Amino acid sequence: MAVTVVGSVAFDALETPHGRRERILGGAATHFSLAASYFTDVRVVGVVGDDFGPEQLAVFESHGIDTSDLSTVAGERSFFWSGRYDQEMQDAETLETQLNVLAGFDPELSAAARECSVLFLANIQPDVQRRVREQCPRPALVGLDSMNYWIASARPALMEAIGLVDVVVLNDAEVRMLTGEPNLPRAVKQIRELGPQAVVVKQGRYGASMFSDGGFFAVPGYPLEQVVDPTGAGDAFAGGFFGYLDRHTDGGFGDNTLRCAAVYGSVLASFAIESFGSERLQELTFAQIEERFEDFRRMTRFESIPLALRTSG
Amino acid sequence: MAVTVVGSVAFDALETPHGRRERILGGAATHFSLAASYFTDVRVVGVVGDDFGPEQLAVFESHGIDTSDLSTVAGERSFFWSGRYDQEMQDAETLETQLNVLAGFDPELSAAARECSVLFLANIQPDVQRRVREQCPRPALVGLDSMNYWIASARPALMEAIGLVDVVVLNDAEVRMLTGEPNLPRAVKQIRELGPQAVVVKQGRYGASMFSDGGFFAVPGYPLEQVVDPTGAGDAFAGGFFGYLDRHTDGGFGDNTLRCAAVYGSVLASFAIESFGSERLQELTFAQIEERFEDFRRMTRFESIPLALRTSG
Repeated sequence: MAVTVVGSVAFDALETPHGRRERILGGAATHFSLAASYFTDVRVVGVVGDDFGPEQLAVFESHGIDTSDLSTVAGERSFFWSGRYDQEMQDAETLETQLNVLAGFDPELSAAARECSVLFLANIQPDVQRRVREQCPRPALVGLDSMNYWIASARPALMEAIGLVDVVVLNDAEVRMLTGEPNLPRAVKQIRELGPQAVVVKQGRYGASMFSDGGFFAVPGYPLEQVVDPTGAGDAFAGGFFGYLDRHTDGGFGDNTLRCAAVYGSVLASFAIESFGSERLQELTFAQIEERFEDFRRMTRFESIPLALRTSG
Repeated sequence: MAVTVVGSVAFDALETPHGRRERILGGAATHFSLAASYFTDVRVVGVVGDDFGPEQLAVFESHGIDTSDLSTVAGERSFFWSGRYDQEMQDAETLETQLNVLAGFDPELSAAARECSVLFLANIQPDVQRRVREQCPRPALVGLDSMNYWIASARPALMEAIGLVDVVVLNDAEVRMLTGEPNLPRAVKQIRELGPQAVVVKQGRYGASMFSDGGFFAVPGYPLEQVVDPTGAGDAFAGGFFGYLDRHTDGGFGDNTLRCAAVYGSVLASFAIESFGSERLQELTFAQIEERFEDFRRMTRFESIPLALRTSG
């Protein structure tokens, strides 16, 4: 049992109404790995520059994340992203993107990384996602994320990659943009027709929805009184979701298992946004995760009270 | 046991990507009454012009809605609203508003209307909401809706009216606008400090959230593949919510009762948007309402699977 995740490991500069960080550990694969590490063994496949030092490596190692497939390109710098959020704390405004080492990223996976039970293709160039997928002979489950940039610039490659995975994780706007269909259930139907069994739609502060053979399932957003930094919430969601599922590869992925995975994803996402970058994800305890899972149960429960409706009409 | 609702009874002209209607029965009190009529006795307090005829009256009467407090002003016309929705089917663009009879609306309630067990102050001028509230000696529960127009133009009067009710029902944007607080849980806390026990936040396609002493509760939006016309969804929600609660005035309003009310509200709202105006609300069956309530249960259920989380970090 192990999750392999391929994606960016980066430095981020972040600015929100609650403060700023000049250069902290970021990247989709980082947030994902940390979140998933609370559930299962994780290997991260990525590339960094020689600005990535022992301090950053220690974050992964202290969570038992295998970094053998994290390669370093000497003389180059790591992927860098700088973004700003306004009071609404919704979409980030990108201030700067430096691809650096990520420009030529096209990994050859180690034998161990290929033998994963769950593979997650975080948001990177869709052809790279496809080639990584093709290197893994028999994962029990493959997930994929993407973003508006690839939908606009590499749509056919993205469609092909989506056809090779079991679960697609996108946000609301990306689902509509990918399909050109404003109605969400119809848009999701189009994506499922490409191959995936399940589509998970991230909806920011409104939570997440999942469409699968088990029907429609929804998890609300966690009602935090202070959101410090939304960066990485979607990747933390995916980490919790696929990390939890990796514990259930034996029994297949029944409907309730997928639902619990979506709730654990929401739990990890809700923690992620409590601090800058991955700060909160680095210091969670199991008790906190389980306690918040119970919060989600309480937030959604209701017991039908039999009601003889009056006749009318 | 009876609900009294005070609000607009109107004619609407509607245009959506699925078609148009030139002049159909509309108004907050209409949508509310029809939705609530599936649960309890309803009296509508409102004013219409002499363009409101037997055909419109029959819609209320066929649902057993008492129209004794619906007054007619001879020689004047009913409130008229014309709106258009784009492909996104979110906010309406108002094309025309004719207040007509509603301009001088300041009702004196009949003795029967005053003796209601549940009072709902639909979206009208806040001073009128207050004066109606003051006419009702002992309702078990009072609810209030409003809109951006009154928040901008009559804020102190609205704050005063809110202080006199038990449950406030507003949409997401209105809650933020009223309080000037972008964070929803904090904004809701401000509103509850004015007096209301509970705040229900309507979130369009994302469903609804409720903040009360029972904590936070969320209901997702119903995943309809075809939304024909969102007009009246919020009023149908309130009708289902308060109509259901009127059946439970004896036992007080426990947490699970409020939660079921929010689900019934969501059920009625989901039906409302399947057709133009109140068309769908006019022709529901109890079996359909109960079936969709069960859909909401299925859409939100998950059973915890015990998981020994691995140690890490």
